[in-house]
Amino acid sequence: MTEIYLDSNATTTPLPEVIEAVTAALRDGWANPSSVHRGGQAVRGRVELARSRVCELIGCRERELIFTSGATEANNLAIRGLIELRGERRVILTTAVEHAAVREPCEALEREGYTVVRLPISVDGVVSPDDLAAALETHGDGVALATIGWANNETGVIQPMVELAGLCQRAGVPLHTDATQAIGKLPVDVEAVGVDVLSMSAHKFHGPKGVGALYLRKTRRVMPQMRGGPHERQRRGGTENVPGIVGMGAAAEAARRWLAGDGPSGVCAMRDRLEAALLAAEPTAAVNGTGAERLINTTNIGFPPLESEAILVMLSERGVYVSAGAACSSGSLEPSPVLLAMGVPEPVAHGSIRLSLSRLSTDEQIDRAVEIVPGVIEKLRASMPAV
Amino acid sequence: MTEIYLDSNATTTPLPEVIEAVTAALRDGWANPSSVHRGGQAVRGRVELARSRVCELIGCRERELIFTSGATEANNLAIRGLIELRGERRVILTTAVEHAAVREPCEALEREGYTVVRLPISVDGVVSPDDLAAALETHGDGVALATIGWANNETGVIQPMVELAGLCQRAGVPLHTDATQAIGKLPVDVEAVGVDVLSMSAHKFHGPKGVGALYLRKTRRVMPQMRGGPHERQRRGGTENVPGIVGMGAAAEAARRWLAGDGPSGVCAMRDRLEAALLAAEPTAAVNGTGAERLINTTNIGFPPLESEAILVMLSERGVYVSAGAACSSGSLEPSPVLLAMGVPEPVAHGSIRLSLSRLSTDEQIDRAVEIVPGVIEKLRASMPAV
Repeated sequence: MTEIYLDSNATTTPLPEVIEAVTAALRDGWANPSSVHRGGQAVRGRVELARSRVCELIGCRERELIFTSGATEANNLAIRGLIELRGERRVILTTAVEHAAVREPCEALEREGYTVVRLPISVDGVVSPDDLAAALETHGDGVALATIGWANNETGVIQPMVELAGLCQRAGVPLHTDATQAIGKLPVDVEAVGVDVLSMSAHKFHGPKGVGALYLRKTRRVMPQMRGGPHERQRRGGTENVPGIVGMGAAAEAARRWLAGDGPSGVCAMRDRLEAALLAAEPTAAVNGTGAERLINTTNIGFPPLESEAILVMLSERGVYVSAGAACSSGSLEPSPVLLAMGVPEPVAHGSIRLSLSRLSTDEQIDRAVEIVPGVIEKLRASMPAV
Repeated sequence: MTEIYLDSNATTTPLPEVIEAVTAALRDGWANPSSVHRGGQAVRGRVELARSRVCELIGCRERELIFTSGATEANNLAIRGLIELRGERRVILTTAVEHAAVREPCEALEREGYTVVRLPISVDGVVSPDDLAAALETHGDGVALATIGWANNETGVIQPMVELAGLCQRAGVPLHTDATQAIGKLPVDVEAVGVDVLSMSAHKFHGPKGVGALYLRKTRRVMPQMRGGPHERQRRGGTENVPGIVGMGAAAEAARRWLAGDGPSGVCAMRDRLEAALLAAEPTAAVNGTGAERLINTTNIGFPPLESEAILVMLSERGVYVSAGAACSSGSLEPSPVLLAMGVPEPVAHGSIRLSLSRLSTDEQIDRAVEIVPGVIEKLRASMPAV
């Protein structure tokens, strides 16, 4: 059985050039980049070359990029690191559709006495710039930071980052964005958009797990959260994850080239074909966030009155890998809080699955998925007790 | 030119089986271990197998081990994570010879109003159990935790952990130890020794960089420092670094086997031979920490009145890689704070270099080092202005 992997928002296949870069670092680039001797300095060169490649992908300077162990660390460093240097400002502006790696740090700060304001979300999952403007006005000088994800991991819905960033810039408020799902799927230029702080993770764009980065605009500062030496310009202690970093560099270089070609429109066409075929086969199916601008690779479809967990387990047995909500919250029987925050009716949210393609997806895989998924839905529907 | 790598306390060569495990994880074990589908569950199995192997190396249960991005994260999680759950207790007992990844978190807590008590260090770098007992007595119920490194990264001096742990257990105080330099060089059994919390890093025992672990005795709790999902039993959010973790598992398995054989006595003999030859060649040379129990692989030798930086740069040009103090503080022209805390005279501390072997060191490398190092010392000495 050949697996049909449609769970690329959970993680992606490392590219051959990524595997080669990681292996080379383990084989002959393993010295400590902080070592003064030539062995160390040669490895320092590899780390800095990888940094340049990641910077080129998002349009920032080398001194603005901090390597981390992933987007979760980057998000925690951004949110707590920013707020600890914002003095008496104690209000965080965010949304109810953030990933756990943003939601949970905000909740922890809330328990410590900070105020967390969650902006309204439209039925299509979008934050309105008007609502952000109003919150900035209402809370004025009390706003410590805003943190709004660029593209949602469950629905693929893309926020109007240019407008949101412009409002924050005019208010002098640092805007952090978790761009983990955006990087490698759409062009991201931090200067053009005007965000101040941005999180990313290599394994979401065909790099290795265990490495990510935080972009920090040169005018912004964060309090280090992991202390232990002057690494990363005093912003993140600890020996650099050299194999991970060079793997991320190779993935960034590949992503930049891929985004410049016609790959993205090909993925989008496959996603659209998959989505249309499933909607046609299942008249009660509904796409969540359909009215919004979405990532090219993602579709989130509700099949009421089924349970998403049952769908994905039966699909898994047939070799089709999808998910219900974030992988990180898998095992939970609650409907997705992201879908509920959008106002998706509970029976639809309960029966929603996420199918997410990647640049390695093929038309043959989509053909097979279109064959297999409706059969599974029918089978589950037939097994439900009559109401 | 073939390099003679004598900087194994900075980092070590990944073993072939480690490289193979990492590469296999990137090639066919890349799904997200939190995914419910079969692809994810297969990867979950690899992560848990690696966890068992690391647990076997230190004698703990699987639920007591938290994977991190390295020892720096583990140390930060231990120190801040413990103290945040210790209520009104606000005293930290530590030493002045800790690695930056322990020293800096303690200093940060000191700036926040906690009291940090640094126990005295003997001229050989050892903490006296009597001094710990006295501090526990003096600060009584105010003691939140003790954090004392198992073996020093610069001198290799080993602390009397059994006695120190026994005192902390009787006082009901959690003892954290940074065992980064001990793991893989000496047998570590957390149950036999009785430490509560222990940090380790894979790349110090021939594993990959970017991965480490925190042992947390089942009766102890830490406040998570990185939030973003229920990973690692709610103690550390973020997608697991699967390639790093499986690499660490392979390194742990190899270390366990190596420690059970006669490899350690062979490394110790090479270290002793190197040390004796350098002392014989340089009558003014002095070994730091010589009177204490030391790691089998480490020697720290002062060559007054030379500057350690000059020695290591000239050695590097001749293909011999050593260090002056921790790699993490390289570039600093200050003498090592570890050596100063031991009362090593400043001219000796200024001219001290660390030579650290590994299980991959060979007699031929030691022969070459014994040939090269005295020549470099002589040359530098000859170039010094007459006083």
